Amino acid sequence: MSEPRSLAGEAEQLDAADGLAAVRERFVLDDVTYLDGNSLGALPAHVPARVADVVGRQWGELRIRSWEESGWWTAPERIGDRIAPLVGAAAGQVVVGDSTSVNVFKALVAAVRMAQEDGGAGGGDGGAGGGDGGAGPVRDEILVDATTFPTDGYIAESAARMTGCALRPVAPAEVPGALGDRTAAVLLNHVDYRSGRLHDLPGLTAAVHAAGAYAVWDLCHSAGALPVGLDEHGVDLAVGCTYKYLNGGPGSPAYLYVRRDLQPRFDSPLPGWNSHAEPFGMRPAYAPASGAVRGRVGTPDILSLLALDAALDVWDEDAVSVAAVRAKSLALTDFFLRCVGAYVPDGRVESVTPAAHAERGSQVALRCEDAGEVMKRLIERGVVGDYRAPDVLRFGFTPLYVGFADVERAARVLSRTLAG
Amino acid sequence: MSEPRSLAGEAEQLDAADGLAAVRERFVLDDVTYLDGNSLGALPAHVPARVADVVGRQWGELRIRSWEESGWWTAPERIGDRIAPLVGAAAGQVVVGDSTSVNVFKALVAAVRMAQEDGGAGGGDGGAGGGDGGAGPVRDEILVDATTFPTDGYIAESAARMTGCALRPVAPAEVPGALGDRTAAVLLNHVDYRSGRLHDLPGLTAAVHAAGAYAVWDLCHSAGALPVGLDEHGVDLAVGCTYKYLNGGPGSPAYLYVRRDLQPRFDSPLPGWNSHAEPFGMRPAYAPASGAVRGRVGTPDILSLLALDAALDVWDEDAVSVAAVRAKSLALTDFFLRCVGAYVPDGRVESVTPAAHAERGSQVALRCEDAGEVMKRLIERGVVGDYRAPDVLRFGFTPLYVGFADVERAARVLSRTLAG
Repeated sequence: MSEPRSLAGEAEQLDAADGLAAVRERFVLDDVTYLDGNSLGALPAHVPARVADVVGRQWGELRIRSWEESGWWTAPERIGDRIAPLVGAAAGQVVVGDSTSVNVFKALVAAVRMAQEDGGAGGGDGGAGGGDGGAGPVRDEILVDATTFPTDGYIAESAARMTGCALRPVAPAEVPGALGDRTAAVLLNHVDYRSGRLHDLPGLTAAVHAAGAYAVWDLCHSAGALPVGLDEHGVDLAVGCTYKYLNGGPGSPAYLYVRRDLQPRFDSPLPGWNSHAEPFGMRPAYAPASGAVRGRVGTPDILSLLALDAALDVWDEDAVSVAAVRAKSLALTDFFLRCVGAYVPDGRVESVTPAAHAERGSQVALRCEDAGEVMKRLIERGVVGDYRAPDVLRFGFTPLYVGFADVERAARVLSRTLAG
Repeated sequence: MSEPRSLAGEAEQLDAADGLAAVRERFVLDDVTYLDGNSLGALPAHVPARVADVVGRQWGELRIRSWEESGWWTAPERIGDRIAPLVGAAAGQVVVGDSTSVNVFKALVAAVRMAQEDGGAGGGDGGAGGGDGGAGPVRDEILVDATTFPTDGYIAESAARMTGCALRPVAPAEVPGALGDRTAAVLLNHVDYRSGRLHDLPGLTAAVHAAGAYAVWDLCHSAGALPVGLDEHGVDLAVGCTYKYLNGGPGSPAYLYVRRDLQPRFDSPLPGWNSHAEPFGMRPAYAPASGAVRGRVGTPDILSLLALDAALDVWDEDAVSVAAVRAKSLALTDFFLRCVGAYVPDGRVESVTPAAHAERGSQVALRCEDAGEVMKRLIERGVVGDYRAPDVLRFGFTPLYVGFADVERAARVLSRTLAG
């Protein structure tokens, strides 16, 4: 049985040829094989000093002056502009703040309002595309990915209830057939959190637009792992978290993308003072700011926000690009599937992650009968993935710090663990 | 003119007799007279080390394990229970997370839903009080403090729009006369952010209840500075920030109080997965958790949250109690008004903060024609307050770290600054 030795040797060669291998040194890692960066990204090594400066000097010494002098006030849009190129957006369209759930609510309610405005007397003012102008149909249905991460579904239900819409869960592949002239908005996940399936963002967005509706994409499991192309594909609104492949830290704030031409029509259900055209004017009447700032709500959580800001520095390195990350991600997941195939007895696990590159995110999900127990034992043996009910072993591959030797080791330890 | 010398001497005596004087050493302060703790509280000296541990060890070394092992997952309710006694609430009713604006939205929408439920067929199930059971009136009006911090008004407008209510701004004193059988909910500020006026929480809450409506209080400018008595006065819902008198750090998360008996009826407009009865069950249908947890939404911002947790340690000291803080706060503001009266020529400034203790928060607001310019010069001279448009000099007094000598100095420098 020479397979293990040869795969280990191959891993060594792949690591030696990996243009991103050196980036691993920018992260705090130990001898654990950490394949849970799709839940919480590892700590970039320079972040602690930056956070210490924010706490000790910016808060401790400058105090209130930091809102201006340390750039606190404008951090949400400034950091949004750092995330923008990672999701294929030009500057001025992404703002950071609040949780993903809260941003789903903003985006979905705003999308429905745009659709209903299109359908009303005014209509046809350059909305999602496909609108036929003039008085259109009543847009009173929201489609939501039936396989979505649950919070998106819960929030979509609330958005539907509060905008007088019906909510219809459909599998992403069935969205084109479910679209109709009552569809106001469609909420989709770019990558399925369980299976790791990458959905067809360009095709589905085009289908949504052809029906005269608005597409809202959740990028939690794709941003920082693969190209998104928000601008290129004409996505209307998008949200995502920053603590997975962007390594922003536990619960670091989420972001909201509103396509530039839709910003004047973005009518937020959470119009807090931070989104006011003149926030320190203390005016009793709300007047929304222009641009991405319109997506802000209340005072931003500066410590979490500036830890994220620091974490994003990794993307400024020459070797690091979304294309390089994607290429390595596919190589890692390919190699993992090969190692699992070689090491794990047939039938013991089944990959629910698509084999086709065009349909694969940066994770591999293996269905396994006793997944919860297996993951516990894997973690005890230093291979950290996670378990998703009822039967999925989930392994995330962050190309910035996961190497091919990690992948080979994970498959080897999995095999040993499954053997009992 | 012996007044300055004698007030300075009096300040020295007051500081010597101050039971909270030693607490000042727990904060990072310099020779600046910092009277802006009602905007951003000073840094407690032990917070940097705690944050460094959260970043370096909890995130960096334990990574994903910290959600359980470092208590990250339950931090919102655990820290809520630490804030609870400071606002007069028994445990299990306060949860920390999101911004104040987002919490105003949750609280106000939930309050309207309760009122409308009372008025509907089900009604009279122990709601706000004063309900007469059975089919009641249609509750379709929200009253909002017309002098409120603007974000509350903006968010109230959105809450009204999304629940089919009308929004009616009224001055707090006029609330009793404005209440009627269409009133669903009333949003009030405990302390006015500009004038520093303390509103009659017990009386206004009772009036709201007598009308069969729900009272939502914003405690941003009172929590940590004076007794609130949420449980004692039967408040229905409350929100507040933690970066002012609670010193949680820039943009530290806000909190939401839902009175225990109302929790089963708390119907959140932001039902994120963190408020699910079984958050890791990944169930497609939403089922709300019991208790304060029901007010959670998405993944909490751990760095900001745990900095706040550390900051709250100050309240564990023997000398520190809300009563002691309130007594010193009144002594500080009394003394400031006396010093201003003694040092500043008549008519140059006018206090818009009530003289009566029962109507005064922990700040003094002085109306002054050229307030913006005066505050700039004050800050240059090391006295930091803030300016609120159009004509208010605002000075906040945090009894945990402001002393009487600071107060005397601030009035003296103000006088010199006004003299040109």
